[in-house]
Amino acid sequence: MNYGYPDDSLMLHTDLYQINMAETYWEDGMHKKNAVFELFFRSLPFGNGYAVFAGLERAIQYLQEFRFSDTDLEYLEHGVGYKQDFIAFLRDLRFTGTVRSMREGELVFGNEPIMRIEAPLVEAQLVETALLNIINYQTLIATKASRIKQVVGNEMLMEFGTRRAHELDAAVWGTRAAYIGGFDSTSNVRAGKMFNLPVSGTHSHAMIQAYKDEYTAFKKYARRHQNCVFLVDTYDTLRSGVPTAIQVAKELGDDINFIGVRLDSGDIAYLSKETRRLLDEAGLTDAKIIASNDLDEYTILNLKAQGAAVDMWGIGTKLITAYDQPALGAVYKLVSIENKQGDMVDTIKISSNAEKVTTPGIKRVYRIINKLNQKSEGDYITLDDENPQKEDHLKMFHPVHTFVTKFVTNFEARDLHHVIFENGELCYTTPPLEEIKDYLQENLDLLWDEYKRSMNPEEYPVDLSQKCWDNKMRNIQEVKQSIRNATARY
Amino acid sequence: MNYGYPDDSLMLHTDLYQINMAETYWEDGMHKKNAVFELFFRSLPFGNGYAVFAGLERAIQYLQEFRFSDTDLEYLEHGVGYKQDFIAFLRDLRFTGTVRSMREGELVFGNEPIMRIEAPLVEAQLVETALLNIINYQTLIATKASRIKQVVGNEMLMEFGTRRAHELDAAVWGTRAAYIGGFDSTSNVRAGKMFNLPVSGTHSHAMIQAYKDEYTAFKKYARRHQNCVFLVDTYDTLRSGVPTAIQVAKELGDDINFIGVRLDSGDIAYLSKETRRLLDEAGLTDAKIIASNDLDEYTILNLKAQGAAVDMWGIGTKLITAYDQPALGAVYKLVSIENKQGDMVDTIKISSNAEKVTTPGIKRVYRIINKLNQKSEGDYITLDDENPQKEDHLKMFHPVHTFVTKFVTNFEARDLHHVIFENGELCYTTPPLEEIKDYLQENLDLLWDEYKRSMNPEEYPVDLSQKCWDNKMRNIQEVKQSIRNATARY
Repeated sequence: MNYGYPDDSLMLHTDLYQINMAETYWEDGMHKKNAVFELFFRSLPFGNGYAVFAGLERAIQYLQEFRFSDTDLEYLEHGVGYKQDFIAFLRDLRFTGTVRSMREGELVFGNEPIMRIEAPLVEAQLVETALLNIINYQTLIATKASRIKQVVGNEMLMEFGTRRAHELDAAVWGTRAAYIGGFDSTSNVRAGKMFNLPVSGTHSHAMIQAYKDEYTAFKKYARRHQNCVFLVDTYDTLRSGVPTAIQVAKELGDDINFIGVRLDSGDIAYLSKETRRLLDEAGLTDAKIIASNDLDEYTILNLKAQGAAVDMWGIGTKLITAYDQPALGAVYKLVSIENKQGDMVDTIKISSNAEKVTTPGIKRVYRIINKLNQKSEGDYITLDDENPQKEDHLKMFHPVHTFVTKFVTNFEARDLHHVIFENGELCYTTPPLEEIKDYLQENLDLLWDEYKRSMNPEEYPVDLSQKCWDNKMRNIQEVKQSIRNATARY
Repeated sequence: MNYGYPDDSLMLHTDLYQINMAETYWEDGMHKKNAVFELFFRSLPFGNGYAVFAGLERAIQYLQEFRFSDTDLEYLEHGVGYKQDFIAFLRDLRFTGTVRSMREGELVFGNEPIMRIEAPLVEAQLVETALLNIINYQTLIATKASRIKQVVGNEMLMEFGTRRAHELDAAVWGTRAAYIGGFDSTSNVRAGKMFNLPVSGTHSHAMIQAYKDEYTAFKKYARRHQNCVFLVDTYDTLRSGVPTAIQVAKELGDDINFIGVRLDSGDIAYLSKETRRLLDEAGLTDAKIIASNDLDEYTILNLKAQGAAVDMWGIGTKLITAYDQPALGAVYKLVSIENKQGDMVDTIKISSNAEKVTTPGIKRVYRIINKLNQKSEGDYITLDDENPQKEDHLKMFHPVHTFVTKFVTNFEARDLHHVIFENGELCYTTPPLEEIKDYLQENLDLLWDEYKRSMNPEEYPVDLSQKCWDNKMRNIQEVKQSIRNATARY
């Protein structure tokens, strides 16, 4: 939405400090130095055993439109106060970098580079905020959707969350991510149009209220809608809604395709079992029962344990807002930069929280698949110039508890990074969503069930190569030494 | 973002069932019946004692652009399968309704109509989803921001959450809502441009890493940035970051305006006190300490209790995602509709959850302000044809515990609804954000402190007029009777 600017762009969709740094680099002549940033999160959301990567399509779109508009530049000059010479520099700025990324639908774990941006420092710096904004959210929702999918098996999952999504973009991009993660349809018609998703929905309580009684409302609805689901909880589910739905289904017979009824409030366990009984007694054994009302993987598991007779699930709030953990903490860190001599030098960020110390160096991620059983042994992070595909055995060790080791032979090392942009040129086509869904399923099949259970899953191994680990230790020592030197100064 | 459609609109940003109902109404000739819907939430978020309404500006924009585009209609016909006659009807559809709404910055409580949409049934039905999507989120964030503001008092609040927001729209509209709720600035430059918000930000760890050492980085940054805040936790806050910031500030002296340092990790209570000591010992007693890192009202209260020496607060994730309750449950309910005779008839939705039973009838909300002390006695919901402004005393009673009553005299009854659209014509101008902020503050001043504390606040009275209450009881009895009649049929 342009909000008053004919030429709104997303270039200003960044934190002010990115532009301040861009100016610092440019003023100092540092801005063209080749820099490599990696995007990763530290811990998996929802206590899940894996995450599902989503957001690449939107990120591509953003990077393709990397160009300050006239009103952007005018705002930066007169609204914020940047000087004209810097504004002139920004005017001609384009994205010329190389982007490697995992594919959407890829399984991803903590501390592995999902995306790797190699570009002139100023460009790589400016794109940080928008990339994180996009990928944090979409990956979170695809992961939540996959958790719910694990619980429902082959039962249909419908996304109903638009009214509770965080503003408009979250509704449409969130439902696309949910579809990747395993959902079957969305209620959001715009998302259906944008992404060619199946759309689903019937009618609301308002229609019953508008016609006053359910009998009239159902009949009116059925005149124009062949595939009928009737919402039965406007007044009294078992005394009024379900009996009326049955009556209308029987009266209309083959004139309609009576799919079933939807329960949107009350005790779903009890109501669904009673509704099933009423439908079956009426001979409508094929009719489905659709449940909704603040459901998520926990309530669904619970309902199933109580023998709820639900065939299809409508999921809104808890999915689209990732209610139990509404943020993924992905970050974007500088791992290597060109020095004055033109050599790449690794960089590190130290922290008093050990898990926040970054892993320096330009890296790759390989999924190590055991050829005997086609199960994954773990992910293996290497420096750029290593190639485990040429090794016949690998030593894998835990990046914290380094004494935990295993040797792997007879493996396939699958490179998880794909080249998306090369020197600013897009060289990747997003596959159709159906292919992305299939790809996720293939990936899930590589994982033992112990990694996939929704509660207390086993920790999937994400290990550094020896060379990568040694490089990290060396960088830590160097920084510590320089702090000692600096401290001596004060 | 148009995502491939030159004429994308927000008309399809709705649930499919709204369009199904629109078709049902149209096919039946019901679509022009005058209908009144009210938008409200049932319970306050975060256990807060009040909510802050935001989202009207965006809702206005949405309603002004109410018109299906060519590709919208093509998708509905060929993508979803609606028939041509209905598509032709939609093509000419415009919003012709009358909208009453609270102002942004208004204090709002559970079960009172925030917005009231009076329009031909088909129009009022189609706008439900987008209005809820917008208002649920923006009101949630304005409320969260106001909670945080209550805790920090006059200390500066900076919004830093874009990277964790739920996609792009949430970042910009969320920060606008945060500004209404009491924040002073945003890091999002696009939001600054769109809404004329103050923007703030300095530099990140990446800049330190790019220059390797803090001394060089701070110096380079200061060459172009007069107002300097240095981020001091890249390597070691107290041994390296703060001493280096002090050194650079002293070397540059009056060449820069040294504002202070930012702490973004570690033990903020301890680090801020030590940093204060180091700054003071260096004579930099005016230098400010800015803290960030997953802060919210709870951590800030806690830090203050520990005597943390923080002067300004950067708030990201926990605000922009409303982390501890990421959804407000506002709903949109039909309260009255024109019957065949052209009379308005009230409607009700019954539920086995008593608090989900709607209050029928076209309503207004008044804030009852005691003229003696200029404090609010509570809100008073009436039917449309009542006018407490003409009464000299009011009996207010609790809508659940009806024996809890009080009589109020010498009051001002402030009508909280403003006419925004009249018969489709916009007749309201959104005030400048500064005015909205001031308006919120005036409103907060009307409330006793007991309603405003962040934990276990007193329940603010939201009462129904006797007439409104009687009308609700009558409607409940009518529905119960009709269910009894229906049950007799089966």
